[in-house]
Amino acid sequence: MSFVPVPEGCDFPIHNLPYGVFSTAGHPRPRIGVAIGDEILDLSVIKHLFTGPVLSRHQDVFDQPALNSFMGLGQAAWREARAFLQKLLSAREARLRDDAELRKCAFTSQAAAVMHLPATIGDYTDFYSSRQHATNVGIMFRGEENALMPNWLYLPVGYHGRASSVVVSGTPIRRPVGQMRPDDSKPPVYGASRLLDIELEMGFFVGPGNKLGEPIPISKAHEHIFGMVLMNDWSARDIQKWEYVPLGPFLGKSLGTTISPWVVPMDALMPFAVPNPKQDPPPLPYLRHDQPYTFDINLSVALKGEGMSQAATICRSNFKHMYWTMLQQLVHHSSNGCNLRPGDLLASGTISGPTPESFGSMLELSWRGTRAIELGSGHTRKFLLDGDEVIITGYCQGDSHRIGFGQCAGKVLPALPLA
Amino acid sequence: MSFVPVPEGCDFPIHNLPYGVFSTAGHPRPRIGVAIGDEILDLSVIKHLFTGPVLSRHQDVFDQPALNSFMGLGQAAWREARAFLQKLLSAREARLRDDAELRKCAFTSQAAAVMHLPATIGDYTDFYSSRQHATNVGIMFRGEENALMPNWLYLPVGYHGRASSVVVSGTPIRRPVGQMRPDDSKPPVYGASRLLDIELEMGFFVGPGNKLGEPIPISKAHEHIFGMVLMNDWSARDIQKWEYVPLGPFLGKSLGTTISPWVVPMDALMPFAVPNPKQDPPPLPYLRHDQPYTFDINLSVALKGEGMSQAATICRSNFKHMYWTMLQQLVHHSSNGCNLRPGDLLASGTISGPTPESFGSMLELSWRGTRAIELGSGHTRKFLLDGDEVIITGYCQGDSHRIGFGQCAGKVLPALPLA
Repeated sequence: MSFVPVPEGCDFPIHNLPYGVFSTAGHPRPRIGVAIGDEILDLSVIKHLFTGPVLSRHQDVFDQPALNSFMGLGQAAWREARAFLQKLLSAREARLRDDAELRKCAFTSQAAAVMHLPATIGDYTDFYSSRQHATNVGIMFRGEENALMPNWLYLPVGYHGRASSVVVSGTPIRRPVGQMRPDDSKPPVYGASRLLDIELEMGFFVGPGNKLGEPIPISKAHEHIFGMVLMNDWSARDIQKWEYVPLGPFLGKSLGTTISPWVVPMDALMPFAVPNPKQDPPPLPYLRHDQPYTFDINLSVALKGEGMSQAATICRSNFKHMYWTMLQQLVHHSSNGCNLRPGDLLASGTISGPTPESFGSMLELSWRGTRAIELGSGHTRKFLLDGDEVIITGYCQGDSHRIGFGQCAGKVLPALPLA
Repeated sequence: MSFVPVPEGCDFPIHNLPYGVFSTAGHPRPRIGVAIGDEILDLSVIKHLFTGPVLSRHQDVFDQPALNSFMGLGQAAWREARAFLQKLLSAREARLRDDAELRKCAFTSQAAAVMHLPATIGDYTDFYSSRQHATNVGIMFRGEENALMPNWLYLPVGYHGRASSVVVSGTPIRRPVGQMRPDDSKPPVYGASRLLDIELEMGFFVGPGNKLGEPIPISKAHEHIFGMVLMNDWSARDIQKWEYVPLGPFLGKSLGTTISPWVVPMDALMPFAVPNPKQDPPPLPYLRHDQPYTFDINLSVALKGEGMSQAATICRSNFKHMYWTMLQQLVHHSSNGCNLRPGDLLASGTISGPTPESFGSMLELSWRGTRAIELGSGHTRKFLLDGDEVIITGYCQGDSHRIGFGQCAGKVLPALPLA
């Protein structure tokens, strides 16, 4: 228990302690904090208290506007920080609890904070690791027989995404304009996307990473995974469909990718690891691991259109539906020697479960626009309308607490008029 | 004419003045310089001399370890810097010429310098804009009839590349290990790539760029193009072939991408603009421009294997063979609102000309490994061998001088043993 009040059902008990970057109106410099209850503990204010063997030499990492340096320090530093913070915040520990002056400087209400991207993202990679999602999309575009591509069961298929357009929860997303070809018998047209979609995903941040030319073996992969966030990989299906052959998705994706601001550390998630899915065919040796690295994280997507009094849940899924693990994604990514750097973001791909209500995109929920998604009170959608707000939430349910991720939210702005 | 000697045929006369980042053994801090003759003018030493209306307020951009801030200042700053440097270095100007003390501090021999990446590359995008290359690859994989994909003539096809693995000329490239499926009737295997290839490309650096959600119109595109470099987009064809469906090239590319260290400013290249290729069908209005933005840049690729006494030229091509212009690439990239940032790198894709000796990859030069590339003295290649050094050079030929790009070079190291 912490001396900081943690309301029932709060995402941020003392068992969680996610890291983020925030600022306030009165103190606009972005800085690192930890969420606890409805508060943020400002690590730039208490950095001098990190006096353990590793962090005493690196207190400056907590006085930076991004988590990259802390991420780069590696597991020993992360564990030391977490153990210290859990002690410092515990109800039994007087150090901060009884120092009214320091508490006043060190705590900020989350309601008063502006959240920023937690890290400067050098590179962002998106995988495609939900078998159900890959199968659904495959059925829609190629039929039941050829749904999964031949490589899919052998390697975690992924692609390089756009880092510049990754934004933090709350950033509005402009409906993109682009080139598409809605009618194959006519030339392509240029205009506002009509098939704007979401993708329910989660991402993880890379820790120390590797040098160019030096792959990370699977036995070391966990040491390079700092923590996880929720993600919405906004997708313009009409732009994507016309552009993506043969080099993959490009402008259909780089219009914006939203992540939740709080990075939940892997040590907070390990109690929620469940057995890995059976992989058949068995993966090649470089991708094999026994450690359970599949996580029971409840996910939901809610949509609130203009004129709706409350958001309607359109999807309930779970991160445990992933086929490829984060260890396998990271190892495969570095297997060619590609260097991963602290703060790189690797994402899951759309997380679709086995049942229709667990599909993680409107493309799947509306089955390519062939059926309406019910929002209640007569509202329906096939794809996103202007003004729609999409809110992704997620949490692990413990016996007496939940490890939550906060929100990953964004609202659709109308397209700009064509020049 | 400059007071700094410029040998006959040198890449770096006073008409060029490319920017780069360098350090020296005695002064290891990376800093910004300009190449002139065989020397480098250290801009961190003379930053106080930039007293024009724009740069007097931004002298600090020349005291940074990368060009991003200078790139972000935009055209007025670039023109002011160039005009000032051409004056300062001219034989008629006493200011630096006659200040022996300052000259001693301000000049470094290129032979004594270590070159670094010119910018911190936030995002790297690779296009596919040579029609001949796209056609060649299309014929090999899909036959004459379906060589060009339906979208190719309507938009500059491109994809998000990996920024972390972009390295400066001279960095060795490790032959990657990866998953591939050389025999479709058997499961995939994991091992060292056997089809390691080059791609002759050029890239340009973005200047000020745009905010997320605010496309750059074609009329403003030139203002966002800082300058150009040579590029070798190393490619493992066997890894690429197995992985790339449906999300595009990934580990077949992110093993390393080499660029030349000197960024040649667009103002040095404008005299070499030639009429744009006829585009049929005409591009959609957002991609139309009249300004000639095709450049006559002679390109060549040389290969020197172990045991060869000198490098053999395997390709002579020209940047003028591009179908899509850099203006069109930049505008298309931002058309969905994707934000481009100072220092982002956008590359051409393989530059293949109409004749077989102008093909920009060994895949094409050896026609998928069906014919040997002659290197002289009995040496041949189909793809790269360990120890091969590849050197790309390029220049524009003026009446009395050349605007050159220096070298983009790299040597292939053997693959690491499998763990």
